[in-house]
Amino acid sequence: MEKKFVKAITARDVDFAKWYTDVVKEAELCDYSGVKGFMVYQPNGYAIWENIMNRLDKRFKDTGVSNVSLPLLIPESLLQKESEHVEGFAPEVAWVTHGGVERLEERLCVRPTSEVLFCDHWQKKIRSYRDLPKLYNQWCSVVRWEKTTRPFLRSREFLWQEGHTIHASKKEAMDRTLMMLDVYYDFVTEDLAIPLIKGRKTDSEKFAGAEATYTIEAMMHDGKALQSGTSHFFGDGFAKAFDVKFINKNNEYEYVNQTSWGFSTRIIGAIIMVHGDDSGLVLPPRIAPVQTMVIPISMNDEKVVNKANEILDRLNKAGIRANIDLSDKSAGWKFNSQELLGIPTRIEIGPKDLENDKVVVVRRDTREKVDVSLNDIEEKLPVILETMQKDMYNKAKKFLDSNIDVATNMEEMVKKFNSKRGFIKAMWCGNEECEDEIKFQTGGASSRCIPFDEEHLSDKCVCCGKPAKHMVIFGKSY
Amino acid sequence: MEKKFVKAITARDVDFAKWYTDVVKEAELCDYSGVKGFMVYQPNGYAIWENIMNRLDKRFKDTGVSNVSLPLLIPESLLQKESEHVEGFAPEVAWVTHGGVERLEERLCVRPTSEVLFCDHWQKKIRSYRDLPKLYNQWCSVVRWEKTTRPFLRSREFLWQEGHTIHASKKEAMDRTLMMLDVYYDFVTEDLAIPLIKGRKTDSEKFAGAEATYTIEAMMHDGKALQSGTSHFFGDGFAKAFDVKFINKNNEYEYVNQTSWGFSTRIIGAIIMVHGDDSGLVLPPRIAPVQTMVIPISMNDEKVVNKANEILDRLNKAGIRANIDLSDKSAGWKFNSQELLGIPTRIEIGPKDLENDKVVVVRRDTREKVDVSLNDIEEKLPVILETMQKDMYNKAKKFLDSNIDVATNMEEMVKKFNSKRGFIKAMWCGNEECEDEIKFQTGGASSRCIPFDEEHLSDKCVCCGKPAKHMVIFGKSY
Repeated sequence: MEKKFVKAITARDVDFAKWYTDVVKEAELCDYSGVKGFMVYQPNGYAIWENIMNRLDKRFKDTGVSNVSLPLLIPESLLQKESEHVEGFAPEVAWVTHGGVERLEERLCVRPTSEVLFCDHWQKKIRSYRDLPKLYNQWCSVVRWEKTTRPFLRSREFLWQEGHTIHASKKEAMDRTLMMLDVYYDFVTEDLAIPLIKGRKTDSEKFAGAEATYTIEAMMHDGKALQSGTSHFFGDGFAKAFDVKFINKNNEYEYVNQTSWGFSTRIIGAIIMVHGDDSGLVLPPRIAPVQTMVIPISMNDEKVVNKANEILDRLNKAGIRANIDLSDKSAGWKFNSQELLGIPTRIEIGPKDLENDKVVVVRRDTREKVDVSLNDIEEKLPVILETMQKDMYNKAKKFLDSNIDVATNMEEMVKKFNSKRGFIKAMWCGNEECEDEIKFQTGGASSRCIPFDEEHLSDKCVCCGKPAKHMVIFGKSY
Repeated sequence: MEKKFVKAITARDVDFAKWYTDVVKEAELCDYSGVKGFMVYQPNGYAIWENIMNRLDKRFKDTGVSNVSLPLLIPESLLQKESEHVEGFAPEVAWVTHGGVERLEERLCVRPTSEVLFCDHWQKKIRSYRDLPKLYNQWCSVVRWEKTTRPFLRSREFLWQEGHTIHASKKEAMDRTLMMLDVYYDFVTEDLAIPLIKGRKTDSEKFAGAEATYTIEAMMHDGKALQSGTSHFFGDGFAKAFDVKFINKNNEYEYVNQTSWGFSTRIIGAIIMVHGDDSGLVLPPRIAPVQTMVIPISMNDEKVVNKANEILDRLNKAGIRANIDLSDKSAGWKFNSQELLGIPTRIEIGPKDLENDKVVVVRRDTREKVDVSLNDIEEKLPVILETMQKDMYNKAKKFLDSNIDVATNMEEMVKKFNSKRGFIKAMWCGNEECEDEIKFQTGGASSRCIPFDEEHLSDKCVCCGKPAKHMVIFGKSY
């Protein structure tokens, strides 16, 4: 009756895409529903998202942000007020045309993002500079009618947060844009142990209606990029379209300056693809719903089971998220299960351990085994978890750094993209045509960002040879 | 420039409905959007909901419930599988007919509730009794195309949680149904200080598709009822419609038994209407986003301001949710603002208080003033807050008890409903026709529930005079 866990998962280096969907399925993170692209987030998957929400929400609130909840539906006329924005989103929204048995006078779209709703609200509320800034965020789901969908990475409905702020000055809005990018950066690197490249999107890749879009880009184990969070600076573009203005200190009308920033469940895809291995998930300890699984080796030995329960109690009291596996499965099955779920550590305890007043702690990432004295378990385990957290980051950072290459001409770039995984740094003239040409010749590599720490690799655009304006990170992406 | 708070709010006893909308507006709890019945939950309103979510979620998890997230949209064919359910909900759902530029092959409704989605998921996942029970919950918004709408009380989109569970036996499912009703009861009475009547809905008032619906009913200050949470027992009705079965210990197929239970943002309406007064909100301390507002009486006195800041720090460190009003408004304005927002206490500190090493703590509900020594503030304030929490419950309980009357014939019932506020207890024969007749003659009083603690008031139905089966609580409702 016991499931063969490891067999159920395709080896990561044999077929990365299959490995990914196998892990999602076997670890019961999410499942398909009857509507294409609409997922069921199961308890194991949703618990990760809950921890992400809790920790990220705290970071938002520490910068003065308040949570709100805006409507699910947007009138078509409202969506159309900002021309670039509607052009970007209208082709991919879901339309509500009937309420109950009545046909609606105006179509309503299910929000794909909520800039226009926030503007509509603020237009009514903002009168004076005293009302500014407004620093709002909401946790919700949005719908975008994508053609191809994959669990967590691309779905028609996804869970996210969208922050929206308005300010009295351009500078204050730009500072907020970059501050929230830093909040994402710190959270992802510190809590998710995922190394990042921080930078600005090129104009062709920025958000519909934004003056500038900033991004954090991560590298998956197959070398592809995953855009992990974006922060947008709008200037007063939306404010003009929606007439959001205030009376400044000199008693003159001025338009507000605006930002928005979003972070979604696709980050769970990144956690899987950066840290996972052939046995399944490997969750960073800070974000893992369960940080350690206590596994009694011999279920028939009452003393062992009692001691295991005692350890569980002590760990939970010490604030460690611990669980115990008291099922009638074999110890081997329990180890496999804990590894599949990516639980950062397991605590093995058998009769011999009991005799020696110790347990064995096994790390999920390295499988390293450490004997820990029973007396010290509350003190030692947090140290092991924090060490693992840092080691996971360092390992992923090394992987990222060693998979970024340089190209100074197209032949080199195409050859490198064809022969190895990873990103390529190259100089760029600033023209969208060259981005398109690069995408075409490399079979899909796009500009991920102009990193904040640009280097001067050469004077010429890698594609057209004209004078270069920026260094760009190129990569194939999810 | 200073707003006249109190003037902006209609007196509660002059026009209760106007008083309610004034409080919602002036306290900036929520606002209308461009789509009728779709609200903007502003920071002050949403913060109350966040506290409700946090505390209720913990109570759910203590009973073994896991959070999940299911799709926003339901295919029409799926909604139609359970006949009573579709009859109840189909007339009031919003329909998505287009995704992007394409017309959908099948209409999708925005979930009005998610029973059918959970059944669809479980049908695929449940194989054996070992897979049971499943104890799931989700926090989300749902849409019901209501004709008349009022902030928090009735809106086309509202925020809620919906719990869904399946079990191997009828008994276990019924136990869970009643357990979750108790979770609601304990939360609302203990944390929201709102007294309740617990009972079962009559067949005409139960949830579409349920075998039995249990409810907690609260009484607002105008004597009207507000259904504050419901827990449904489905038996295996949905399971049969959706073919959700499992292999039991005897190796036979059996249908699962199912429950669901929901609690929504309308409870915020109850908090307002049970506890509020002519000065605005009065929030129960356990749920108040801010529990005390520190108000320096003289903003020009540096020593006073410094001490006020020091108190704020100390309170926050002691785990009390404290804030400080350092605006350039007058002290009177600040008091009015704190009272409008329903912040349970304020701490007044002026030069004379400083001289005497004390502050004045003012309770929002009674306006009672207490001198508290500066040294004792961390110890004394929590005691004041807990006392206030209990006093608020007791006051509301007294109000509830003293506004329940008895009627033994229709003349008496109609007269009482016309002359005074509150509920009326009466005997009932069990026929829907009598409920309809009572509703008609009283101008809208419906059966709120058959309370768990039924009394024997007489042998005859209050309406038709035939033998009575149950005692019912009748009331006009929101």
